Amino acid sequence: MDLKISPLAPTSFPDLPAIEGVRLSTAQAGIKYKGRTDVLLVLMDEGTRAAGVFTRSMCPSAPVEWCREKLADGAARALLVNSGNANAFTGLKGRQAVEISARDTGAKAGVPADRVFLASTGVIGEPLAAEKFAAVLEDLVAEAAPDKWRSAAEAIMTTDTFPKLATARVEIDGVPVTINGVAKGSGMIAPDMATMLGFLFTDLPASGHVLQKMLADEVGGTFNAITVDSDTSTSDTVMLFATGKAAAGGVAAIEDFDDPRIPVFRAALRGVMEDLAHQIVRDGEGATKFVKVTVTRATDTQAARKIAFSIANSPLVKTAIAGEDANWGRVVMAVGKAGQPADRDRLAIWFGDTRVAVDGERDPAYDEDTVSAYMKRQDIELRVDLGLGDASDTVWTCDLTKAYVEINGDYRT
Amino acid sequence: MDLKISPLAPTSFPDLPAIEGVRLSTAQAGIKYKGRTDVLLVLMDEGTRAAGVFTRSMCPSAPVEWCREKLADGAARALLVNSGNANAFTGLKGRQAVEISARDTGAKAGVPADRVFLASTGVIGEPLAAEKFAAVLEDLVAEAAPDKWRSAAEAIMTTDTFPKLATARVEIDGVPVTINGVAKGSGMIAPDMATMLGFLFTDLPASGHVLQKMLADEVGGTFNAITVDSDTSTSDTVMLFATGKAAAGGVAAIEDFDDPRIPVFRAALRGVMEDLAHQIVRDGEGATKFVKVTVTRATDTQAARKIAFSIANSPLVKTAIAGEDANWGRVVMAVGKAGQPADRDRLAIWFGDTRVAVDGERDPAYDEDTVSAYMKRQDIELRVDLGLGDASDTVWTCDLTKAYVEINGDYRT
Repeated sequence: MDLKISPLAPTSFPDLPAIEGVRLSTAQAGIKYKGRTDVLLVLMDEGTRAAGVFTRSMCPSAPVEWCREKLADGAARALLVNSGNANAFTGLKGRQAVEISARDTGAKAGVPADRVFLASTGVIGEPLAAEKFAAVLEDLVAEAAPDKWRSAAEAIMTTDTFPKLATARVEIDGVPVTINGVAKGSGMIAPDMATMLGFLFTDLPASGHVLQKMLADEVGGTFNAITVDSDTSTSDTVMLFATGKAAAGGVAAIEDFDDPRIPVFRAALRGVMEDLAHQIVRDGEGATKFVKVTVTRATDTQAARKIAFSIANSPLVKTAIAGEDANWGRVVMAVGKAGQPADRDRLAIWFGDTRVAVDGERDPAYDEDTVSAYMKRQDIELRVDLGLGDASDTVWTCDLTKAYVEINGDYRT
Repeated sequence: MDLKISPLAPTSFPDLPAIEGVRLSTAQAGIKYKGRTDVLLVLMDEGTRAAGVFTRSMCPSAPVEWCREKLADGAARALLVNSGNANAFTGLKGRQAVEISARDTGAKAGVPADRVFLASTGVIGEPLAAEKFAAVLEDLVAEAAPDKWRSAAEAIMTTDTFPKLATARVEIDGVPVTINGVAKGSGMIAPDMATMLGFLFTDLPASGHVLQKMLADEVGGTFNAITVDSDTSTSDTVMLFATGKAAAGGVAAIEDFDDPRIPVFRAALRGVMEDLAHQIVRDGEGATKFVKVTVTRATDTQAARKIAFSIANSPLVKTAIAGEDANWGRVVMAVGKAGQPADRDRLAIWFGDTRVAVDGERDPAYDEDTVSAYMKRQDIELRVDLGLGDASDTVWTCDLTKAYVEINGDYRT
């Protein structure tokens, strides 16, 4: 299948600066794809700390299980990512492939196998041939360099139509600290899955538990606040690696979660994560609209989120948006089915700045032409005010088009 | 939009016999549609008991609220159903329309307004003009007859592509007792909703609480075990009316839920409900496949159902089936995301009689050609064995095709 670049793709890609202690390298291992890179190796200096958040699937992939286990001591020296095969639902062979990959990578890079983190995305149920890594590892190690961010983002793509990169710089103790991120998702070709991978790197010196808490907290409003089709991969992985090299410039290590320097760093980290997460939605299969769904005045944040996702995942809402139809009746339906506190007669619904429904009825004042014009935009904001409490939440999604069905329908020939 | 009859439609319609104490009538009230019937009136004799199960939406329609309230005493004399307007999210005007409709129907039919049940399906957010009923009620009452089942099923259609009817007969105390049912769903045209309505009628003499418990119990495995697109209408309604006329033939009234005659009746009731529920799936928007999803050896029935629905509602599973692809990897994904007890390494998955995955891996023995041939069928059975406990459950769904997106995308012109 030929995939055109998403109409929602960014018009340019950021140049990511080097991060001291991080070197990257890519190769063509021929795992599934021909004529393109499919392996990324990231080497990180001694002292690098790692944090990770993984799929909530009850059927996680072998690499996810490996990473969860190896995160226990928080130290990292390498990250090996491949596209083309997810090494998921591969049984004992999958666990063996993970062990061989980590062992071989460690041996070639001169680091302990336990400090090699792994992620795989692609076909599931097919054994992953770990020996294909062995054939390229020597070159990968030899060619690792600090400026290969764009090619790193390209090597982990499956049916993504564009590479996803983001960067930010903040001052901590008067010293510039960098955060770089690459991500992939959520295109797919059967029998692939819409795996979402995100890798973040920084030179901030910080303890593993501080990194873990920051990452886990910020995932909620970024990578966990997006949906393309409500389907959750067995391989979803977001990791944050901190080399600590900014310490040399004078940044004291952040060891405590009450550290007053955290909010500044977190805001920048959140910015990078949100940017990458939104790029994933903008690359949603068949997407023609980028949709922000906000629920306000809910009884609590969890209720706001559940209602927001009920709207964002509703096929009827998503097809209506694809059709540029401000179909607030379907929004009411999606609020109602969420099973969370809601009072039909207090609901108000906005598309952009236009209130289309209020107090349990169509807003008598709303102008159809204004809303119709608004719905033709690429970026749509949909807001529901529940009028019950003071909690709110926002999630992002895309529309549901015929192209989604086509991409995922695998009309076998 | 021109809707072709679903390729999954039944090839013939059953002839429903008369049920003593039930008379039906339809009319063209011009609520939304032109040149077709859009109102159904059912008149029932004194002594008729009613039971009902309604949408779980937090934003139910005005008629749903009316029915819930009026069911309290369990007595029914009339049912008025319209298509074309759902009277949902219509605020105070909606409640007034319900009261006027019940009052006018009661007056013309000579029965208390409190014993008139109402259901509406169609556009939401548009005020329902109750005076349109008033104009046709006199004729509806005058023309009511016991043999108008087919036209009853036709009058309540919205974008259904065929009328849905089912019937069964059982012997209770040596006397034949009849159950007839009509239903509608789940086609839709924006801004309509996929409302599901089902009305069941019998001459069994039984108390309201027995009827209510039977209906509520059987809804679980029938109308509540189907999904087209995971979206729940604000107007879903299933009602059971029992005239009790079989008492004249010698059937003693069933007043107690331990009555030994209940299982026979329930089995027949279940058959009618299941038949109608399956017809609704077969008329799912854009459906080309009728899919039975069974989950076995779950820890408990609720877990089995949640996993079955997670599979049945997964856009990735549904698009794969549309593409005739036995994509068991997506089934694993859907099991994993359900959040219910599951062990990846114990999962086995069948398409029809072919086991495609076992013990956390692709089944090495499975024959791709056999499965490919199976996937070309219209009726597909998908089974997941969790290998954990002894609970199981089954739900039914259809595939997700481009036609679904087209039907619901309302490409405004």
